[in-house]
Amino acid sequence: MKPWENNIRKTIPYVPGEQPDRQHMIKLNTNENPYPPAPGVAESLYSFDADQLRLYPDPEAKSLIQALAKRYRVKPEQVFAGVGSDDVLAMAFLTFFNSGKPILFPDITYSFYEVWADVFRIPYEKVPLDEHFRIRSQDYHRQNGGIIFPNPNAPTGELESLADIEEILKYNQDVIVIVDEAYIDFGGKSALALTDRYENLLVVQTFSKSRSLAGLRIGYAIGSEALIRYLNDVKYSFNSYTLSQPVILAGSAALADEVYFKKTIHKIVTTRERMKGEFRKLGFVSGDSQSNFLFVTHPEIPAKELFEALKEQNIYVRYFQKPRIDNYLRITIGTDEEMDTLLDFLREYVKRTSRV
Amino acid sequence: MKPWENNIRKTIPYVPGEQPDRQHMIKLNTNENPYPPAPGVAESLYSFDADQLRLYPDPEAKSLIQALAKRYRVKPEQVFAGVGSDDVLAMAFLTFFNSGKPILFPDITYSFYEVWADVFRIPYEKVPLDEHFRIRSQDYHRQNGGIIFPNPNAPTGELESLADIEEILKYNQDVIVIVDEAYIDFGGKSALALTDRYENLLVVQTFSKSRSLAGLRIGYAIGSEALIRYLNDVKYSFNSYTLSQPVILAGSAALADEVYFKKTIHKIVTTRERMKGEFRKLGFVSGDSQSNFLFVTHPEIPAKELFEALKEQNIYVRYFQKPRIDNYLRITIGTDEEMDTLLDFLREYVKRTSRV
Repeated sequence: MKPWENNIRKTIPYVPGEQPDRQHMIKLNTNENPYPPAPGVAESLYSFDADQLRLYPDPEAKSLIQALAKRYRVKPEQVFAGVGSDDVLAMAFLTFFNSGKPILFPDITYSFYEVWADVFRIPYEKVPLDEHFRIRSQDYHRQNGGIIFPNPNAPTGELESLADIEEILKYNQDVIVIVDEAYIDFGGKSALALTDRYENLLVVQTFSKSRSLAGLRIGYAIGSEALIRYLNDVKYSFNSYTLSQPVILAGSAALADEVYFKKTIHKIVTTRERMKGEFRKLGFVSGDSQSNFLFVTHPEIPAKELFEALKEQNIYVRYFQKPRIDNYLRITIGTDEEMDTLLDFLREYVKRTSRV
Repeated sequence: MKPWENNIRKTIPYVPGEQPDRQHMIKLNTNENPYPPAPGVAESLYSFDADQLRLYPDPEAKSLIQALAKRYRVKPEQVFAGVGSDDVLAMAFLTFFNSGKPILFPDITYSFYEVWADVFRIPYEKVPLDEHFRIRSQDYHRQNGGIIFPNPNAPTGELESLADIEEILKYNQDVIVIVDEAYIDFGGKSALALTDRYENLLVVQTFSKSRSLAGLRIGYAIGSEALIRYLNDVKYSFNSYTLSQPVILAGSAALADEVYFKKTIHKIVTTRERMKGEFRKLGFVSGDSQSNFLFVTHPEIPAKELFEALKEQNIYVRYFQKPRIDNYLRITIGTDEEMDTLLDFLREYVKRTSRV
C-alpha cells in the first residue's frame, strides 16, 4: 500500500442486480416495472426547452415537492426529495443515526442497509425475522440508535400491519424510525397515516417501481417538518442541486396522472396474484408477497441451479447467496407474456427434475 | 429539544446563490454560462425513448465515462462521474480525508469546502492567500490530512501555474491532493497533465460552467486508477445509480461537439477581457481572472451598497459577507448585451457617487 492510501475510507459496496443489455431478454431481476411511465413523462421531455439547461435547477425542486405534498396531503415542508430512495436513505442514515448505539434492522432485508451503516461507521444489529420471514415487533423493544425496515420487506415481499409498525413506534420515541416503502403501492397500507402522531417517523418511497421511473432517479421522504428540516440541512451540506431540470419536470408530470398510475398497479397486482397460484401448482413455496415480486423456493430444485438455468434462457431473476435465503429466488412481476414464458420453462424444468 | 432530536447531525448548510425567476432579470450571480448548451443536447432529449425510463440507468454510466475518457485521453478506469462537481467533491471528502489530521484549503475559496468538512467531521485549517489573493505553495509544506483548492480559485478567479501546483504535490505525496477545476476551461492549464506522475492527485471538473449544463448536474473526476476505484467503492456504498438516463445521454451528446464548446468559450473569454478594461476605466480594481467571472472592488463604493443597487435594477451579482472579501463583488460574465446593460448602470452609479 502506498503512503497516500493509508487514510482512505475502504468499503465493500452494494452490488445492484445485473443490468445486461440483451436482445429479447426477460428482465425480472431488479424489480423494475414492466409498463412504461405515464405518457405525460415523455411529453414533458419532448417539450422541454434545453436552452434552459445552462441555468441551475431549482435547488428546492419546488414543483416536484409541491406535487408530492398535494398527492399525499401533507405540507410541502414535510417532503424531502433525492436521487432515488437510495440517496434519500443514505442522507437519512447520515443525518439521523449518530448516537453511537447500534441501529436495528431485520437480518433478511434490503442489503444496502448494512452498506450504509458501514460507510458511515454506524454500529448495527440485525434482528432475525421469524420462521415465516415476518418482523416480530417486540424484538424492537430495546435500546438502539434508530430503526429501519422496508414494508413490504425485500426480498421477501412480506407486509407488516400498521398496528405492528405502531407497536415499534410506541416503544421507540427517542430515536428515528424509518419505514422504507419502496413497494407499498403494490398492496400495503402506508405508514404515512402515522406521521401525524409520530414526529420521529420517516416514510421513504420511490418513483422507481410503481411509477415506472427507475431510469429517472427520484425518491422521497415524508415526515414531520422538524425531521425534514434536519434532512434538508444535511442534503444542502452535501450537494445544493441533486435533481436535474428534466428530472424535476418529468417527475412532476408522472404524479399528475393518477388514473394511469392506478391502472398500471392494477395490472401488476393481477398478474402477481395469478402467479402465486401458478407457482404453487409447480410445487414452489412462497409467502403472500404484497410487492411487485415473488420470493420463492422449491423443495426439490436448488435455487442457484434454477437461477443459472433461467439465465441460459435469457431470463434474469435475482439470487442472493446469503444465510437463510440461499435457496430462494426473487422474481419480479413482468408482463403477462413474460411471466407465461417463464412459466412454460419452469413447467418443463420441474417435470424434467422430478423425472430424474 | 425532543428526545429523538439528540443524535441528529446538525449542520450549517452551504447557501447557493439565489435562483430568482424574474422576467428580464440579468443573472450574473451563480457563474452560469450565458449561452445554451450544444445543439446535440436538445436533440438527445427529443429523440429519447421515455418508455425506457422504467429501467434503471447504467450504474456505471459507461457511455458518458467513455466519452470523457476519450476527450481527456485517459483510460475509462481513470474517470469518475457524479451529480455535479459538488457530488463528486462530497464523495471525495468522504473517501479521502479520514486521517484525523486537518485538511488544508485557502482562507478565501469555495465556501462549500468547510461545509463538507463540517458535515463529515473532518478537521481543517484555512491557509491564508497572499495580499493578491494568490496561493503560496510553500504554505502547504506541512503535515496535513489532505489538500484541496480550486484553480482558478473562486471567487477570485486567480489562476496558479502548474509549476506551483507541482510544488504542492511534491511535498504532499502521502495525502490526497484535489484540484477543483470548475473554471479551468476559461483560460487555465489543467492539472490533468500531472495525473500521470502523481497517483494521489484528483482533478475535478464540471459540465455546469463551460458546457452550459448547470441544469443537468454532471461533474467528474480524473485521477489514477487506484484513486478512482476507491472513489467508486464509496459511491456504490452510497447510491448505485446517481445519474439518470436522460442526463447520461445528454451529457455524452454535449461532449461530442468540441467545435461548439470552443466557440462558446471563445465568446466568453473575449467578453471577459473587454470587461476587465471597462471595469478598470470605472475605477474598479480586480485581479486577472481566468474564469467566467470577475472579482472586483471599488475604492469609493462599498460593495454591499452596489450589490443592493444592482438588485433593484434586476441585475443579480454575488456578494460574500466574509472577512477580507466583504468589499468585493463576484460578477459572472454574461452576454455582451447583458454586460453592456450592467456597464451603463455602473457608469451612472460611479458618476453619481463621485459627485456626492
